[in-house]
Amino acid sequence: MEKGLLVVISGPSGTGKGTICRELLKRVDATLSISMTTRAPRPGEKEGRHYYFTDRERFEAHARAGGFFEHAEVYGERYGTPKEPALEALAKGRDVILEIDTQGAMQVREAYPEGVFIFVVPPSLAELKRRIEKRGGESPEKIALRLSKAEGEMAYREKYDYAVVNDKLARAVDDVRAIIRAEHLKVESNRRKKDAAGTVDH
Amino acid sequence: MEKGLLVVISGPSGTGKGTICRELLKRVDATLSISMTTRAPRPGEKEGRHYYFTDRERFEAHARAGGFFEHAEVYGERYGTPKEPALEALAKGRDVILEIDTQGAMQVREAYPEGVFIFVVPPSLAELKRRIEKRGGESPEKIALRLSKAEGEMAYREKYDYAVVNDKLARAVDDVRAIIRAEHLKVESNRRKKDAAGTVDH
Repeated sequence: MEKGLLVVISGPSGTGKGTICRELLKRVDATLSISMTTRAPRPGEKEGRHYYFTDRERFEAHARAGGFFEHAEVYGERYGTPKEPALEALAKGRDVILEIDTQGAMQVREAYPEGVFIFVVPPSLAELKRRIEKRGGESPEKIALRLSKAEGEMAYREKYDYAVVNDKLARAVDDVRAIIRAEHLKVESNRRKKDAAGTVDH
Repeated sequence: MEKGLLVVISGPSGTGKGTICRELLKRVDATLSISMTTRAPRPGEKEGRHYYFTDRERFEAHARAGGFFEHAEVYGERYGTPKEPALEALAKGRDVILEIDTQGAMQVREAYPEGVFIFVVPPSLAELKRRIEKRGGESPEKIALRLSKAEGEMAYREKYDYAVVNDKLARAVDDVRAIIRAEHLKVESNRRKKDAAGTVDH
């Protein structure tokens, strides 16, 4: 059986990668990768749907055992992408969608270079500002910080296989669907060649 | 402006690559590459639409001047893919569709490695036999020869970027459209990397 594709949807904060993933999952038959975290569940968050919730000790043990594609600490809490559920789905021929920030994506690429790495580009920094503000709940200082971080993150684009501009959601989702379809049509030996080139680059 | 893509649709004789190209041109905005030949026009064939018709002397001069991506002799007549119209369209940002046999495709890849090389796979050799017979006008010996040649040509698959199975025409055309769309979304630096890998392989 043909193995599934690990499709990594990534990009700066506020580019709408989460929305793309949600829409994508309505249109393609794929499994969403669920993160593991040490932070407490927020109201409405469900175990195994939004996150796998765990404690610090178990998280660290999982990390030491090489159980994550990547993990990071954000505001004092640990977040990681568990390998096992993804590898299991891929082996069964299912595509796995992974939404992740740029730093995480680079770690995933080290661990799984044969993944398909898609960078979601905001139409412009002005639009990005509008989106982050619309999402609300953040001070002007924090918004400015996010924006300058996003600007810096645009340089990551070159590290990805594909770049999709999220100006119109439906179009961006169709772009990602075309990428997934095309990747399945790649000749296996040349896919490996690409990966080899990708790995040398690190 | 972003350069257009040279999309090479290739594969063994009888796989339906011509039909795919014709359908494709109804669905995508692209220029069809027209071959140059020394053979006489058949009834209904139009200059610049089916072929550029020329004489042997001019053909050879064009070949010596490096004016072809590839050229070959078939049954005593010369056929070639002229570079200039394709390069001109590509520079204007237009995609160019080139239908060509497997040997020709390999020459085009030498001359233009940044092309997108798609191998059209017949659903099966039985189906291929049916198609070649249906096309008619050939002796059983010639059909057998074509089939054994096609079987040998299947090994070329590994030299291509993508493989599209032509079981259902509409599906195959949509596959090629997805490939073209995805190729336009590729991050430029990684496209070059792939090409570099591709070139080393020759």
